[in-house]
Amino acid sequence: MAESGGGVTRRKNPVQRLKSASHSPGEPEETDREEAGLRCHKLQDSLLSSASGYSNYRGVLNWCVIMLVLGNARLFLENLIKYGILVDPIQVVSLFLKDPYSWPSLCLVLASHVFILGSLHLERRLASGSFPERIGVFLYVLILCSILCLPVLVVFTVPSLTPVGAVFSLMVYTILFLKLYSYKDVNRWCRERRRAQVRALSRTQSAPQMRKANGDIGKQEVTYPGNLTHRDMYYFMLAPTLCYELNFPRSPRIRKRFLLRRLFEMLFIMQLLVGLIQQWMVPAIQNSMKPFRDMDYSRMIERLLKLAVPNHLIWLIFFYWFFHSSMNFVAELMRFGDREFYRDWWNSETVTYFWQNWNIPVHKWCLRHFYKPMMRRGIPRWAAQTAVFFASAFFHEYLVSVPMKMFRPWAFMGMMSQIPLAWFVGRFLQGNYGNAAVWISLIIGQPTAVLMYVHDYYILNHGIRS
Amino acid sequence: MAESGGGVTRRKNPVQRLKSASHSPGEPEETDREEAGLRCHKLQDSLLSSASGYSNYRGVLNWCVIMLVLGNARLFLENLIKYGILVDPIQVVSLFLKDPYSWPSLCLVLASHVFILGSLHLERRLASGSFPERIGVFLYVLILCSILCLPVLVVFTVPSLTPVGAVFSLMVYTILFLKLYSYKDVNRWCRERRRAQVRALSRTQSAPQMRKANGDIGKQEVTYPGNLTHRDMYYFMLAPTLCYELNFPRSPRIRKRFLLRRLFEMLFIMQLLVGLIQQWMVPAIQNSMKPFRDMDYSRMIERLLKLAVPNHLIWLIFFYWFFHSSMNFVAELMRFGDREFYRDWWNSETVTYFWQNWNIPVHKWCLRHFYKPMMRRGIPRWAAQTAVFFASAFFHEYLVSVPMKMFRPWAFMGMMSQIPLAWFVGRFLQGNYGNAAVWISLIIGQPTAVLMYVHDYYILNHGIRS
Repeated sequence: MAESGGGVTRRKNPVQRLKSASHSPGEPEETDREEAGLRCHKLQDSLLSSASGYSNYRGVLNWCVIMLVLGNARLFLENLIKYGILVDPIQVVSLFLKDPYSWPSLCLVLASHVFILGSLHLERRLASGSFPERIGVFLYVLILCSILCLPVLVVFTVPSLTPVGAVFSLMVYTILFLKLYSYKDVNRWCRERRRAQVRALSRTQSAPQMRKANGDIGKQEVTYPGNLTHRDMYYFMLAPTLCYELNFPRSPRIRKRFLLRRLFEMLFIMQLLVGLIQQWMVPAIQNSMKPFRDMDYSRMIERLLKLAVPNHLIWLIFFYWFFHSSMNFVAELMRFGDREFYRDWWNSETVTYFWQNWNIPVHKWCLRHFYKPMMRRGIPRWAAQTAVFFASAFFHEYLVSVPMKMFRPWAFMGMMSQIPLAWFVGRFLQGNYGNAAVWISLIIGQPTAVLMYVHDYYILNHGIRS
Repeated sequence: MAESGGGVTRRKNPVQRLKSASHSPGEPEETDREEAGLRCHKLQDSLLSSASGYSNYRGVLNWCVIMLVLGNARLFLENLIKYGILVDPIQVVSLFLKDPYSWPSLCLVLASHVFILGSLHLERRLASGSFPERIGVFLYVLILCSILCLPVLVVFTVPSLTPVGAVFSLMVYTILFLKLYSYKDVNRWCRERRRAQVRALSRTQSAPQMRKANGDIGKQEVTYPGNLTHRDMYYFMLAPTLCYELNFPRSPRIRKRFLLRRLFEMLFIMQLLVGLIQQWMVPAIQNSMKPFRDMDYSRMIERLLKLAVPNHLIWLIFFYWFFHSSMNFVAELMRFGDREFYRDWWNSETVTYFWQNWNIPVHKWCLRHFYKPMMRRGIPRWAAQTAVFFASAFFHEYLVSVPMKMFRPWAFMGMMSQIPLAWFVGRFLQGNYGNAAVWISLIIGQPTAVLMYVHDYYILNHGIRS
């Protein structure tokens, strides 16, 4: 073997283009040239010695990228040789449909209109004052609880609902829950504000002036009871945000090229995701079952790392597909102006910064409708933060356990473990080390949770299969 | 599978520490707060949209590093599970020694003193004028030819010489060849200079002044015939350079901590290299034999990429071990001042820049004793450059083919293919693309050549084994 190592030892540098070699031959100045020839060393340090003060390693970034591409190209080829082509678009349809004459997911999604229209009409009654606030709160609790419970009920009673279909409808209902919660809050704030204005009016007796000012603002903007229309409600339901606002910022026009680019990305990346999952994740997970059943630790870690790479890449692609392509596509189509669906979480140096910046719609909702109201009621900050984590952990568990019909605390624990992790990273790791810790927790944490669930699901549903 | 994708869709951002949330609860200013609560969107672009002008992807470098470390950690673990521990230091000794009573490599290295002392005494005769220049040239041709031919003769006649031992002695003799060639050239230049000075003296008749000036310079520095001592000769032979100089720059003192650090690195990295080769390279190469014999192209590429990673890492570690640790160790021990053994080849954007900067001792030698003398004789630049490549290709072939007793043109062709590659990269690829092309040629080119030789060697010596 040492031949291969030795073969590269004494390579010659074959091309010389130093400036000193560029003087024209012929008529050489004898002494100068010889002087130059006789002296060819000077006192200096090696570049990699700390004394040299050298720090230009730009090429190393290129090296990293190439090694990653080559390493994954090899894995891809190895996978193809081992398993052949596993991508099968028909199989995707079967994940959603068990019985082609029964479409429970679609029915569930259509049923959601009941809640949307119910909320709208409830708000109209509240705006006109025909319902007191207390009854409004009671009815909203009823609506929101039904939104969370109805899909659970359907999942456990309708046998033709597939797990993927169940995840899809649960997701829709969770989004609906968050949106209607925001809708309720904002409309209540508007009523409180109207009442405060009326009180201020009766105190200062300057009613006409006030109304005029309101009229000025309202020329282009919608004011409180005017927003309670079907059009406004469905715009909010389809808009890529979870926070209701009476007057959403609108972009001036639909840019056709932007729209087509995003549409192309959406379609292409969706195919890519499906292909990667079928070709790479499924075999990797299936191969992981045996070591996990046998509790063979070194193989478990090897399988976990093998799964971590495709899982992480798929998550990154999914992030781009969902938060950039799809949300921008919908926003462009609806001329929705606020495109901040994510911030620069890839640079996050604390776990907190990551959670605050990777999913802006949910972050905005939590901040506006959960954290700030708690703070206003005088709940201490640590308690409010823990409550947000707790709610988040609950929804994670809800979205995973219900479709699998299997209650395991892995997603819940995964979310709750972010609290000690955030404390540890914030306390001990700074700058690039913090950033690296966040990346590692993402790359390793996710596949661990995925493996836990899939393992338990397989053992429950298919028995032991190696 | 979609569960795993879906499970991460709607994560909640659980910790909110935005500045706006930090105002104290209690006595809230109703209108302001509501105003803030009602408006929560603003017109803005997504960060990844080209319109946003955002470009801070510092975290991505950390991501690359982590993915590389994790990917290789997995490969390491997979290897350990598959093969167990293959590292065996005793085996290393057996690579050098076939018969414990016969040490041909050591004898060869000891025999090199004949050539060193021969050259020194020849130079003394030439300096004193008792040999004419013509005989000096003839004797040097004899010495240099014997240096190249003697180890070849020994390799082909002594059966107890192992391939690794042969590579080692050929390397020593190649270095000896380059050093003595430089020694001969510099001493000849000194004689020419002395003759020119004598001529200048006889022309200007200002002998005493000239001699005084020489004496002034010479107070601390060695002048021509004074350098022809055993001490000076052996200092040059052991110094980490191939270019002879009468007065090498010397560092003021031996830094003990620097020396110990380099020594530790040398010993540790040598173990690491041996371990990596035994544990990673040997199985990868053995597994590559079957696809290469069967000419199964997709498997050949997969094996090549699998081999490329350990081969490249071992080469990088070897580079650090040889050019930084070992050379700096020797230089520190000898108080040799010029530590420029490599320049920043990792940033090279052209193939030419890489060859000029990765191995400075050889580059310096080629420039000083091969390329510049050719230029001075009026040989056109392209011819001189090609000649340097040709000589380099010859030595590569010499160092690989002779120990394997097998003449295949792979190393020669590998070197010669650098000429069209350099032209292509210089012509079509700029900046980072050029840098990436250089890295790829390094990462892919080396294992290709290694596989070629090992494949042919196995088939020749062990017959077909899969």
